[in-house]
Amino acid sequence: MDAAAREAQGSLEWRVTVPEGASVTVEHEAGVAERAWAWVVACMIALRAAVAGFARKVWKIGADDPRRAVHGLKVGLALTLVSVVYYTRPVYDGVGGNAMWAVMTVVVVFEYTVGGCMYKGFNRAVATASAGLLALGVSWVADKSGDKLEPIILSGSLFLLAAAATFSRFIPTVKARFDYGVTIFILTFSLVAVSGYRVDQLLDLAQQRMSTIAIGIIICLAVCVVIWPVWAGQELHLLTVRNMEKLAATVEGCVEDYFAAKPAQAQASPKSEGYKCVLNSKASEDSQANLARWEPPHGRFGFRHPYAQYTKVGAAMRHCAYCIEALNSCVRAEVQAPEHVKRLLGDVCTRLASQCSRVLKEASSSVAAMTGPKTLDFAVADMNTAVHELQGDLRALPPVLALEPAEMSLMDAMPLFTVASLLIEISARTEGVVDAVETLATLANFKQVEDDDDNNGQTEMKVHPLNVPDDDASTQENQTTKHPEQV
Amino acid sequence: MDAAAREAQGSLEWRVTVPEGASVTVEHEAGVAERAWAWVVACMIALRAAVAGFARKVWKIGADDPRRAVHGLKVGLALTLVSVVYYTRPVYDGVGGNAMWAVMTVVVVFEYTVGGCMYKGFNRAVATASAGLLALGVSWVADKSGDKLEPIILSGSLFLLAAAATFSRFIPTVKARFDYGVTIFILTFSLVAVSGYRVDQLLDLAQQRMSTIAIGIIICLAVCVVIWPVWAGQELHLLTVRNMEKLAATVEGCVEDYFAAKPAQAQASPKSEGYKCVLNSKASEDSQANLARWEPPHGRFGFRHPYAQYTKVGAAMRHCAYCIEALNSCVRAEVQAPEHVKRLLGDVCTRLASQCSRVLKEASSSVAAMTGPKTLDFAVADMNTAVHELQGDLRALPPVLALEPAEMSLMDAMPLFTVASLLIEISARTEGVVDAVETLATLANFKQVEDDDDNNGQTEMKVHPLNVPDDDASTQENQTTKHPEQV
Repeated sequence: MDAAAREAQGSLEWRVTVPEGASVTVEHEAGVAERAWAWVVACMIALRAAVAGFARKVWKIGADDPRRAVHGLKVGLALTLVSVVYYTRPVYDGVGGNAMWAVMTVVVVFEYTVGGCMYKGFNRAVATASAGLLALGVSWVADKSGDKLEPIILSGSLFLLAAAATFSRFIPTVKARFDYGVTIFILTFSLVAVSGYRVDQLLDLAQQRMSTIAIGIIICLAVCVVIWPVWAGQELHLLTVRNMEKLAATVEGCVEDYFAAKPAQAQASPKSEGYKCVLNSKASEDSQANLARWEPPHGRFGFRHPYAQYTKVGAAMRHCAYCIEALNSCVRAEVQAPEHVKRLLGDVCTRLASQCSRVLKEASSSVAAMTGPKTLDFAVADMNTAVHELQGDLRALPPVLALEPAEMSLMDAMPLFTVASLLIEISARTEGVVDAVETLATLANFKQVEDDDDNNGQTEMKVHPLNVPDDDASTQENQTTKHPEQV
Repeated sequence: MDAAAREAQGSLEWRVTVPEGASVTVEHEAGVAERAWAWVVACMIALRAAVAGFARKVWKIGADDPRRAVHGLKVGLALTLVSVVYYTRPVYDGVGGNAMWAVMTVVVVFEYTVGGCMYKGFNRAVATASAGLLALGVSWVADKSGDKLEPIILSGSLFLLAAAATFSRFIPTVKARFDYGVTIFILTFSLVAVSGYRVDQLLDLAQQRMSTIAIGIIICLAVCVVIWPVWAGQELHLLTVRNMEKLAATVEGCVEDYFAAKPAQAQASPKSEGYKCVLNSKASEDSQANLARWEPPHGRFGFRHPYAQYTKVGAAMRHCAYCIEALNSCVRAEVQAPEHVKRLLGDVCTRLASQCSRVLKEASSSVAAMTGPKTLDFAVADMNTAVHELQGDLRALPPVLALEPAEMSLMDAMPLFTVASLLIEISARTEGVVDAVETLATLANFKQVEDDDDNNGQTEMKVHPLNVPDDDASTQENQTTKHPEQV
């Protein structure tokens, strides 16, 4: 619609600006040339709009996280460095272009996160070395077996090794940690096996190849670590913190929406949609945890930091988010309990939700600051008190409802009961998140806040704020201030 | 524990079988040598147990899906083929080892699914050609600019192109469809740019390189398609069908467990755990849909088969599964409504669950057989009738409960109300799944069953059963028989 309107406008505008001579040759009553030209102009306008839209999208990708643009520059730098190192020597020089292997190593090993770089670098180095050694051995055996047997031994071993190595990729551990290594293993073995070189030539070649690949890996790692490094472990940490914040905001937001004066079916407040990120973050959590284990100690992430536990925290959060999803659909449902029934449980439900949310916020700030979750136990106790209050209010309900049996049936109150029991279930699952966070705190040796600071432990926990990007700034804010919506 | 026991036994056994001369030199009272030997034996036994366990695991991976083992053999075959093709010409011959590129192509392009192979093959071919052309142009310009400017132009263009291409990988569309192509683009451009060859040499090289890569890709695709091909589209199709079956079984199983004579908190029947697969299958659905779009028409999957709609069906199923998760935790909860209260809604809830399950089963068999979901509307109507029955029973409840106010409070009945309203929500979300399936049927032009077969349309839908592997055989079974548990 819009494009057609712009097209019409565009062709009109064009007729205004066309040189006099041209407009004379055009038949005014929809001549062929005019329509063709209008079509071309329309196309160009549409193209310009598409390009502009695409450019805005691309710009937004970079602006949302400038580290992405920096990553591009880092790859360019690493490649230029390696090409400068090898510029004096042409790539295809005699022994099959060793410089080529350095360039290739940089292109395929350089990853966004340090963990990714380490994973690929390690896999490439070890796989090349082991496959090279094995291939040398096989070549030597084939060499000694005579001309007739040689191709059979070489092809047979290639077939068997490639089949076995490929199959090994279906083993989950191999897939998670050595997938790239298996590829390089097969590649190196087949290149050496079919190279047709003699063993002494191969030894020479292997040595040069290894040193070239080593140079490539070293350049990669140096550029990756020195210039604005992106640590997979830190990304995972921040993702966990952010998701926990979102869960906290959602629980509170949903229940606020539900008991708000106006029913909020239509306009879901953005902060009550945050659980969706939690539902969908399993894949990125798993991959980041996988890469993080390759990273050396950095900042507050020590040697053998328990990254696997973050995925367990993530699983507990998803478990919580499933229930919040059900709660959210109750809140947005068309059939709602009447307002006066809602009001019966409004206060106590809102209190429970805000206690739940407080527990999640304290857990997230404990993870963010990497301090022991000291005040968390109090928050959990408060939450459980709120649960008991809600249960008490529910027990007290029947006589209340019996006062006005003519006006309402149990059926009318059912949506409210469902919300209440989902809230109770959510608080139980929130405890699951807290358990996972406490295990994480133990495994990662989170710093304990001092005992005599018990009363203001909340502020103490903020002593060492993590270097979070802008959109996560709220995690560093004082817990007592209202969190901005960041979903 | 077990290892220690075996160790003791092992060392005893060893002492029986040791040669006479040796046992003389060993001090009987825990001599150093004896303990060391016992330790070695224990290690070997533990190692053997570990190897045996690992072997069993690996065997199971292959036995569960023999196509995995076949995939390994296919890769071996393709590599052997390509090495035989090039065996007469040594890999590192003059122009930088063209045969090497064929081997490398096979190793990196051969993927498990045909779609994966096509994706990588296409990306590799197009990226190599376009980057090669661009690099030729840049080389030509650099060549004409004189010796001083040449390295600056080459390095500068390499830096800029590598940075821009790397950044482009953060664009979701590029990431999904051309990620591998971008890598190859950077690789090819840098290899040509830093090669130090003259333009006429490069032209020669480019032609040879392209033909070598083409041979590699053709061998890959031929082996991949001809020998027991694994189609990503079909995998996606089967995954969707299987997940829908699992959802159907879970809804029925959960409610059966809930109203079973014995409370089933502890032992969850395996069929009521199937929803977990649905919750976790987003990543595989997305990647399969991504790869499937590269596949040529095959079997009943025509040109432009709407694979993207499968992911929407998957999303609708997950939406349903979130609610089932909440239901499942109600079923397994410690606090349960008293048996006599449960009995009030037992029949109608079980009926609704089995209607829900029937709708999902019919939807899945409609997808499996790729026939129009004709009888689905009736099933949905029946399900909605069951919803109304449940709602009616709920409305009728208060007087029933009022009969025995001393024995129970509203609070006791609440878990039951929650189950009932979750069931109602699940049936609403099941309709969402049905809508997605109907859209899929329209987009994919599912065959319509004949009108005059309305009464036995159910059996008609089975006319063209899909070639499903063994573990999915149940989808072809007659719908009226009880489905075996296949979770």
